[in-house]
Order: sequence, then structure tokens, then C-alpha cells
Amino acid sequence: MSAVPSSSDAPRTPAVTTTSSLDVTDAAAAAGHVVEQLRARRPLVQCITNYVSMDLAANLLNAAGASPAMVHHPQEAGEFAGLADAVVANIGTPSPDWADGIVAATTVAVERGVPWVLDPVAVGATSYRRDLAGRLLTNRPTVIRGNAGEVLALAGVAGASRGVDSAADSSAVGDQAAALAAEAGCVVAVTGARDLVTDGRRQLTIDGGDRRAPMITALGCSATALVAACCAVGEDRLAATAAALAMITVAIERAGRDAAGPGSLRWRLLDELADLSADQVGSRIEESHRDDQS
Amino acid sequence: MSAVPSSSDAPRTPAVTTTSSLDVTDAAAAAGHVVEQLRARRPLVQCITNYVSMDLAANLLNAAGASPAMVHHPQEAGEFAGLADAVVANIGTPSPDWADGIVAATTVAVERGVPWVLDPVAVGATSYRRDLAGRLLTNRPTVIRGNAGEVLALAGVAGASRGVDSAADSSAVGDQAAALAAEAGCVVAVTGARDLVTDGRRQLTIDGGDRRAPMITALGCSATALVAACCAVGEDRLAATAAALAMITVAIERAGRDAAGPGSLRWRLLDELADLSADQVGSRIEESHRDDQS
Amino acid sequence: MSAVPSSSDAPRTPAVTTTSSLDVTDAAAAAGHVVEQLRARRPLVQCITNYVSMDLAANLLNAAGASPAMVHHPQEAGEFAGLADAVVANIGTPSPDWADGIVAATTVAVERGVPWVLDPVAVGATSYRRDLAGRLLTNRPTVIRGNAGEVLALAGVAGASRGVDSAADSSAVGDQAAALAAEAGCVVAVTGARDLVTDGRRQLTIDGGDRRAPMITALGCSATALVAACCAVGEDRLAATAAALAMITVAIERAGRDAAGPGSLRWRLLDELADLSADQVGSRIEESHRDDQS
Repeated sequence: MSAVPSSSDAPRTPAVTTTSSLDVTDAAAAAGHVVEQLRARRPLVQCITNYVSMDLAANLLNAAGASPAMVHHPQEAGEFAGLADAVVANIGTPSPDWADGIVAATTVAVERGVPWVLDPVAVGATSYRRDLAGRLLTNRPTVIRGNAGEVLALAGVAGASRGVDSAADSSAVGDQAAALAAEAGCVVAVTGARDLVTDGRRQLTIDGGDRRAPMITALGCSATALVAACCAVGEDRLAATAAALAMITVAIERAGRDAAGPGSLRWRLLDELADLSADQVGSRIEESHRDDQS
Repeated sequence: MSAVPSSSDAPRTPAVTTTSSLDVTDAAAAAGHVVEQLRARRPLVQCITNYVSMDLAANLLNAAGASPAMVHHPQEAGEFAGLADAVVANIGTPSPDWADGIVAATTVAVERGVPWVLDPVAVGATSYRRDLAGRLLTNRPTVIRGNAGEVLALAGVAGASRGVDSAADSSAVGDQAAALAAEAGCVVAVTGARDLVTDGRRQLTIDGGDRRAPMITALGCSATALVAACCAVGEDRLAATAAALAMITVAIERAGRDAAGPGSLRWRLLDELADLSADQVGSRIEESHRDDQS
Repeated sequence: MSAVPSSSDAPRTPAVTTTSSLDVTDAAAAAGHVVEQLRARRPLVQCITNYVSMDLAANLLNAAGASPAMVHHPQEAGEFAGLADAVVANIGTPSPDWADGIVAATTVAVERGVPWVLDPVAVGATSYRRDLAGRLLTNRPTVIRGNAGEVLALAGVAGASRGVDSAADSSAVGDQAAALAAEAGCVVAVTGARDLVTDGRRQLTIDGGDRRAPMITALGCSATALVAACCAVGEDRLAATAAALAMITVAIERAGRDAAGPGSLRWRLLDELADLSADQVGSRIEESHRDDQS
């Protein structure tokens, strides 16, 4: 683990300047720029994430060009957030201590204008997770990243949905994701066979990948960590979020060409991530026009 | 991590109907059937397992066709067990909080008729582990999976043995394993160069594998998780347990053909697991006739 | 995880007999001997290490020939240290419980004359880490292993330095490392592009490796674990520490020849570690003569 800031020129307080006139080409260009900035600035990403995901999330951040630091205990999580360029809050293996650590770190992140990303793992599975996610939503995440079921469940917690839909695939939850984004005032990313990113108004999609990707445990959690890293260097958080998901999509698609199964798919993903070009990433992002629905 | 039940037709309360007239052919056939059912039904396995094993256990379950969920905190472990198709209780890195989580989850599992598997990691090493294992035994595990030394030590805790034998290899502990199975009313699996599975009366064995398997950390813990997954879809728990161990034995044997060392052995194991046929698994299980000893 | 001592002839109380007349050839020979002893005696290494490093540290110890056991909870850490051949104390993801476990285990280690190694991960990042590291220093570690920034920060905690230097690479911190070694009465190892090992008087260096090594998360933490394993079987702790670092340097250099990126570099490292010869390791260690500075 590298927990010491390694780059003194890393951005401390990136300004949020989402330009509403961005079109598709701009989003793709912005995403490509994020790939380059990640390697140039090596943002320090404080990951408060579940035990299962730590190994992959940290190695994936390293491969992509960011600097991971797993710092979660309430004794130090807030202080450390004063050094971080982005914060990840993942509730995959929650406990009261870690919840306190998340609140401390994200509170400092908000104060400093540093992005933080919420991963509401299995939020619908237990009341403890629902309560915790509701508490964290009040701390204004910059981005929420989940699968379709998690986004639907969280939309329910946030009051942005009137129930849980049965067909939980990413294409079918665009409306709820947009409503959640509007309600929570953040970007919402839904990953699946098709990835979808929305700020409640605009929607970007990423297609591709490998059908065996779900066999890699914690790939979604690691995507969340990469979203945080990209938001640390990309001022347009919609494009930065899409950049992170496109990086993983392109890398796993390339990894899948020579992978015989889920074991080789995982290490090849890391090899490919370290070798991606900005063009490969940007060209994968498309703006999809949704019917206007409030 | 995938912690949301992904298959609504997963078995919620599999009936226990161990048929005493099963012969060798039946055990092999039943084991082959388990491999197919695992992929068809994708059981949700709640793993309360040690920190070291989480990554491999989750990826191994995914590769084999099951759905892992690492949920251990007492705040939610019992509630989550209400959704799970099987529960794993591994004491590799024990603490009072996790012990409470294990008790909560396994109590719900027993109430629901859902299988749970105990892995008494290093039970002989400290008094804390001995006390915890003794406490858990009273909650009636469906299966106990350990190495020879652990099974001997646990037999001592359970009063099924009068000491710890010096020669702790799996072939030499058949009597103690059978005595422990009879005493605890469960299936006992002993893994090693030869794997042995007994319910106190019948005994199945699996030979093969790769001599470098012990260099893969947490392979035994991951085998325990796969035993739980197989018991979720196999009504004959003796055969289901043998199926899990045979899956790993065959997969690692195939992985070993091209593996230059322990690093490549591990990822190749996952690739092979995802590619196993029912025939390969079933044909590896043999019933070995032991002299009758009580 | 293998947490049960597997070799009854493992050294229980290795004597410390650092011979002051050792020259370069002797250090190289002693290091080569350590590689052989590691495999012959398979020391049990109790690792109290951060969550991120557990998987790699355990697998790396296994590949090198040692037996890892992750046992950290205060309920059992001290008792288990009575069985261990070496103890690792890594503060990468610290908490009050684990701090108590570290104190309990290292106290027993000191009483038994068993080596223990401190890894002061990110010690300069938060006041909690600084306080904890200061508390642990009073328990007399056998070796401290860190990167340049951590060693500089710890030297400040220990009063062996008057500040934090700006140029934090391993070559530039020889004086502070030597001062820290003298102040703390232990061996200090600084890893980086060049590794440096000192007892305050003599200094050994190891060059080589692969420029992509920093992309493997927890490689430094795993090096710390291997230092502990080597000190369990090598009476000359300066040479044993250098042996551990040279093992990793040579293995990763060989791994890098065929590695396309950080994913393949990691598993190839494990393959190569299991295949190293004593000669390859010993020949990589050089004694570098420093100007005398107090």
C-alpha cells in the first residue's frame, strides 16, 4: 500500500465547473483527458471499502495511475481526508466503526471541495445497510456508483422511486437513476452489460466489456474507486465518471481476447489498464438522448 | 462483490434427504449433478470468513457458479442469513464481534433448514479458538471441513478423541473424523494429499490435485466455501461435500499441467473451475470401505 | 491459511550472534544460507498486517518457503506469539484493538528472543500513526522496514532526525537510516529503486528489480513479512534482512522479463520466488562503505 502522497502537485481543491453546453464530442474528449491527467497527477484516493475489494481496488487504482490508501478507522479517517484528492465510501462490509470513519472522511471531503463517491453495496439486503446509506446520502456524495438493483433500492431510500422494479438491468433503470441524481444532487452511475452515467439531465452510456466480467469479485467496487480517482482530476464529473467506466470496459474487453477464464481475465485486466490510450477510452463514450421525464 | 440474490429461483429451503442406500455410483452421479445445479441455480453463499481468504473464496465461488456475499457483522449477519442459501463460518481471524455474527447467522440457518459449514482454522493453536469452536459446535453444523490437524484438535474439543495424534495426515485420521461426525451429527471433510469425507458411517475419498496446492494461501478456506455452495444445491450432503472437494482437486490438477509455480497455479485454478464438466468431477469420487469402528 | 506450525523442528529461540568481523563475502554467503534454511525449516510467521496486504503477504511467504499465520486479535495474539518463529507488526490499517494485539504479540516475541519486524506504513500521515509507531518503538523491534519517506518520518518520531527531508529516495536517506538504527538498536531497511539495509554501522545495498514494482500494491508490506521469515532462520539479522530484499529484487527482475504489466508481474513474482537459488540471492548483495557519520 502506498498511503503517502507521492505527488506534491496533485490537485487539492479541483473546481467543479460542469459546463452545460458540453456535447458528445466534448464528453469523449474530456474523458480522454482524464486518462492522461490520472497518470500525470497520480491522485491520492482514500478508500474506505469492504474487505473483499481491497486487493483488487488498490491494484486497479495503481494500474490506472492513481495512488490508493486504505484508511478507514475513525481515529484517523477525517485527518487523512485532509490529504486525499478523493474519498471512496463503500458499504460492502459495514460496521459502526467504519460508518463513523466514512462520515468523518466525507465530511472533510465536502468541506475541502474534494469529490467523494458512494458505493451502496447490497443496500436493499438489510435494514442496517438501508439506514447507513440514508445517513450517507445526507453528506452529499459527488457520485453514486452501483448496479441496477442497488440504484433502484437507493432510489427508494432517497424517495426518488416508488418501489423496486423487477427488471433490474442497467438499460431499464435510466429514469430512476436520473431521478436519484436529481434528488441527491449528484452524478449516478449504473454498471452492467451497458454502463449508464447521468446527472439527472444528460446521460452517457458505455457498451462493451466481457460477459465473464461478473465472475471477477469486487470489479464493481474497484470501478467505484476508479471513479473517485477520475473525479479528482476531471472537473466535469459526468465525463470523469464515464471515463472511469470506459477505462474498465475497454481494458476488460482487451483482456478477454486472450483470457481462458475468470482467473486470467483478472490479471490481464490490470495489464491492459496500465496500457490504455486516451483515444481508446474517449471513443467508447456515447451520449444517449433520453425522453424528458421528471 | 455481489451480495444481492441474483436468482429468484434459488433454493430457499432445500430438504435434507440423505438416502442410506446410496452406493458408489450414486455418490458420483449425485456429485456430478451438483456441479450442474451450482451453475443453474447460482446459490447465494453468506461467507463469514477470515480476512486472508476473502478474495480467493469469493472468486472461487464465482468461478464455480455460486454467488458469494461476505456479511459478518452482528448488526446484519442474522438478517442476511434469512436470504442466504448457505452459510460459511470460518474462525481464521476470529474476534468477539465476528463470533456474535457467526452465532446469529448460523442460528437463522438452522431455523430455516439451510446448510452451514464450519471451518475450525487452527483450532488447536489458542484457547480462544478452542472455546469458540466448542460454542459453534453446539449450533449443529451441517459439515465441518478442516485439515488433519484441525479435525484431530476439534475431535478433542468435541470429546470424540482422547488426544492429538502425532501423524496428522488425512489418511490416518479416518477413525477420528468418523467419530467426530457421529458425535456432532454432521458430515466431516478432511483435506490433504487425499481428501476424505465421512458422515460417521460411509466414507468417500478423492485423490489427485497438485503437490504445490498448499502454497496457495486460503485454498482450504475456499474449499469450505465451495462445500457450502454445493450443500445448498445437493440434497445428499455427503455427496455434495465430496463434489466440492473433487471440483477443486480436478481443477487444480488441470491447472498444474501448465503452471510454473504457485502464482500461476492460483489463477489457472479459477480458469479451470469455470470450465469443469460434471463427469470430470463425479468420476473422481470413490467410496472406500473402512473397518467398522465406533 | 495455514496457521498451525507444520514443522516441529522449526527454530523456537534462534540465538542472536551478529559477528562484527563479517565482510562482503560473508554477508552474501549468509544470505544464500537463509534462502536454503527458509525452505528447510519453514518458519511460522505471525503476521499482524493491514487488510490490503494479507493476500499477497501470505502467498509470498508461502512461495518463499515460510508458513504465514494472520493472528492479530488481542484475545489470542500474545498466546499465539508463543508458537511463532517471528512476528510482523504492520500499521497500514491500524485500530486500537490491533494495536493491543501488536503490543501483546511483540512483548512475547521479545521475551522469547524471537525476532519481530515493524512496518511503519504511512507513519507521517496522521497523528494516530505517529503515536502508535512511537509506542511500538519502545518494544524494541529487531528490524524496521519502510520506504524512504516512512523511515525519515520514523526517524523524526524516534528523535534520530531533526525534520523531514524533501528528497525522499532510498539512496539519500542512508544517514538517517543509520541514525535510526543506532537510536532504536535494530536493523533498518529502506526499500526503493535501491534497497538499503543498515545496523547503524554497516550498510548493505541491493540493486535491480523492475520499474513497475511500485504498481503491485502491498509489495513493501510483503517484503516486511519476508524479512521476518528470514530473521527467524538467519542469526545475522543484517544479512537475513538483506536476503529477504534480495529475494524479492531478483524474483521481480526475472518476473519482469515476460510480464506485460502489473497484473502478470504479480503472479510471476510468486512463481519466481518459489524457484530462486541461494546463489542468485547472495550475489546480489553488496556492502557499500559509507563515510562515518553519527
